[in-house]
Amino acid sequence: MKRTFTFILLLIANLAFARQEDSLLLRTVSDEIMLHATCYENLKVLTKQVGHRLSGSPEAEKAVEWGKKAMLAAGADSVWLQPVEVPRWIRGQEYLKVQLDGKNFTDMEMLSLGNTDGTDGKIMERDVICVPDLNTFEQLDAEKIKDKIIFFDYRFRQDIINTFEGYGDAVKYRWVAVNKAAARGAAAVIIRSVSTGPDAAPHTGSSKYNDGVRHIPAVAIGNTSADALSKACRSGRVKAQLLSHCKTTGTAMSFNVIGEIKGDSKKEEIIVVGGHLDSWDVGEGAHDDGAGCVQAIEVVRTIKALNIKPRRTIRAVLYMNEENGVKGGTAYADSALIRKERHVLAMESDAGGFVPRGIGLEMPDPLKQIVRSWAGIFLPYGIHDFSQEEGGVDISPLKKQGVPLAGLLPDSQRYFDLHHSRNDIFETVNHRELKLGAWTMAAFVLLADKYFP
Amino acid sequence: MKRTFTFILLLIANLAFARQEDSLLLRTVSDEIMLHATCYENLKVLTKQVGHRLSGSPEAEKAVEWGKKAMLAAGADSVWLQPVEVPRWIRGQEYLKVQLDGKNFTDMEMLSLGNTDGTDGKIMERDVICVPDLNTFEQLDAEKIKDKIIFFDYRFRQDIINTFEGYGDAVKYRWVAVNKAAARGAAAVIIRSVSTGPDAAPHTGSSKYNDGVRHIPAVAIGNTSADALSKACRSGRVKAQLLSHCKTTGTAMSFNVIGEIKGDSKKEEIIVVGGHLDSWDVGEGAHDDGAGCVQAIEVVRTIKALNIKPRRTIRAVLYMNEENGVKGGTAYADSALIRKERHVLAMESDAGGFVPRGIGLEMPDPLKQIVRSWAGIFLPYGIHDFSQEEGGVDISPLKKQGVPLAGLLPDSQRYFDLHHSRNDIFETVNHRELKLGAWTMAAFVLLADKYFP
Repeated sequence: MKRTFTFILLLIANLAFARQEDSLLLRTVSDEIMLHATCYENLKVLTKQVGHRLSGSPEAEKAVEWGKKAMLAAGADSVWLQPVEVPRWIRGQEYLKVQLDGKNFTDMEMLSLGNTDGTDGKIMERDVICVPDLNTFEQLDAEKIKDKIIFFDYRFRQDIINTFEGYGDAVKYRWVAVNKAAARGAAAVIIRSVSTGPDAAPHTGSSKYNDGVRHIPAVAIGNTSADALSKACRSGRVKAQLLSHCKTTGTAMSFNVIGEIKGDSKKEEIIVVGGHLDSWDVGEGAHDDGAGCVQAIEVVRTIKALNIKPRRTIRAVLYMNEENGVKGGTAYADSALIRKERHVLAMESDAGGFVPRGIGLEMPDPLKQIVRSWAGIFLPYGIHDFSQEEGGVDISPLKKQGVPLAGLLPDSQRYFDLHHSRNDIFETVNHRELKLGAWTMAAFVLLADKYFP
Repeated sequence: MKRTFTFILLLIANLAFARQEDSLLLRTVSDEIMLHATCYENLKVLTKQVGHRLSGSPEAEKAVEWGKKAMLAAGADSVWLQPVEVPRWIRGQEYLKVQLDGKNFTDMEMLSLGNTDGTDGKIMERDVICVPDLNTFEQLDAEKIKDKIIFFDYRFRQDIINTFEGYGDAVKYRWVAVNKAAARGAAAVIIRSVSTGPDAAPHTGSSKYNDGVRHIPAVAIGNTSADALSKACRSGRVKAQLLSHCKTTGTAMSFNVIGEIKGDSKKEEIIVVGGHLDSWDVGEGAHDDGAGCVQAIEVVRTIKALNIKPRRTIRAVLYMNEENGVKGGTAYADSALIRKERHVLAMESDAGGFVPRGIGLEMPDPLKQIVRSWAGIFLPYGIHDFSQEEGGVDISPLKKQGVPLAGLLPDSQRYFDLHHSRNDIFETVNHRELKLGAWTMAAFVLLADKYFP
């Protein structure tokens, strides 16, 4: 009995010692990042010297070159490019003019939805029919829809506190509305942007035509524009003129950028951390997802700068083509399968460079238990939420291979004001928030390296 | 035994029912605020139509008029102005020119510290002596200090995660440096701004001459300017020219703005919630503390809009002169004492309009226990931290009367980039974050009304 008691006491003492050791290590990591990080400067270069970078564009290729250099500067043991075939979608000139007063056509800021086809450079002039939601649309008579421009005026629900939940609710209008409208003979679709922003900025983003559906144009307008259009529709007949040139023009070759720190005792096991390098073709892709890229690179830089020797191999991956195809994430997972690589964990930062609040866990319960035992170490850094089941789009193909996924969860309040819009620029990223996110990723990776089976 | 068991079961069921009832009420409050709040629009008017508003200035009086109107528009049962005598400090024209190259004098953005006296409009040209901290200064020989401009180059510690802690560490240079330097014969003081900002923006803020100390000028420069000046000092002799007109010119009459919702069964008991109306004389005082004012008004608006009948009287107070004297907070507490008002709780929002994370509790342990029993209700709104002992500067005079204090705790990462600088403007406040803070205050006030003894 006495022996058992002593054993338990020793075990507790050991655990307490390990926790203290972990706390101290992660404090060292925090000091390194808060005082010497290069992620904020890296993001400035990516956003200001490369700018936005849609897959298949010359800017995306510049971003690949930037990523390779930044990964080498961070001190990765090896850096390579992984080929990815990506779709080429081109926006071209576009405009929308609306009779807000029932008479004159006035310009309304707009963006065609990604992957859609435009008016082929012709001016399409049609009546606008306003519907608040899909249910109302379904109940409209056929002749009310036929050859009209249907305006889906569905609002991003501001009453939902977690904006990713509100996004999940509203984003179906970006995916579904164009197909529903095309199937019933509409000429084009306007949607209220999937946006929390109190402004006129339109937000683009992926859409997709279902098989056999006519490729009608689909565009987004900002919230205050949608308010104005909605008001005009309530006042009487409204016509709109739409012109756009957007189209998909085959594919292009591009790359994932990969940087690696070789592991020590378990070097054949891999922990991968990343963000996506491509962005939409407006703004600067600062939060989406320049932030995730520079944070992943920062994880490499910090581990090397502190001369930490992880047991596993740590890889930072900048995925190409998250926005309109996920070809980079798929290529990475395919390669892992072919090469029979054992991935212990895949983590992504693709929810903005805002102040971190938690880590999403898409993994079996026993691993979640391990992670939640670290809660006390994370709390002094404001990381308190381990309750969400969230990984990341680029790492989701690895899930099919049974790889545990984790996602950085920054505070969500500001994200959908900026997401996929011209407002997603460097100036909206805060240096300390960005660095704290990088710390969260580094801390999680190091603890997973130590404690994950 | 069976009866006791039944009793306990009933008690648990009652508690669970009360919790569910509270959750539902606070969800209703959240919907009202996230969908119909006027606080963001109110802040826009205050910052853009009134602008910055130092105590004793014409803008401060405009702000009082604005506050009265906004409180009435929110539906307060009664609104009144409480007289406050405030100091009048005037900045006037000022500049700092520094020989960064050892030869030419170039302009360096600067702000005199509040409450200090300037050079009386004369150009003061002196050698600059750079010291990294007070310890180094103490060890300097007298002749190194005598008639020199002492540059205290102490950095806001970016490695401290809670920036209010970092502020507490660095802000002593705003209060102490000028007195130490004056006592040893220095001609003037420059401090590195008490700022986390990665820019040249100087941050002003209160200072104070100790009794008997010479009133030498004291100014702040931004972080990148401080880097440049520090580098110049390391390269050789640096002279600076300082000109300033700032001075204190007696006092002026001003007001706290008070709006009240009359309580029901316990109307003689008061819960007070507030922020401060004055700001420094640069920027727009958006986060500091326009945010707190419009949030306090939002608490009133929401309770009235939802037709909630609190047991206690709820008061929103916009305090005057937090920045350089706390005369408003003192006047309010003095009046409460004279009128023998019983305050059950005083809450303040004066840490920025950023996303809320917690509520600071400066109150006896049994009350803290009550508050912490609400944690589950607050968590879905991201409010997770009830561990800090923080009230607010304006409500601190009430503490002497034994009033329990609470302080809204927004995320702290961005605050000291903006605080007391030209960058504290409306555009840096996010509509959803501001509203969530208002919700946190309304929720706390309503629960305290129900459960506080």
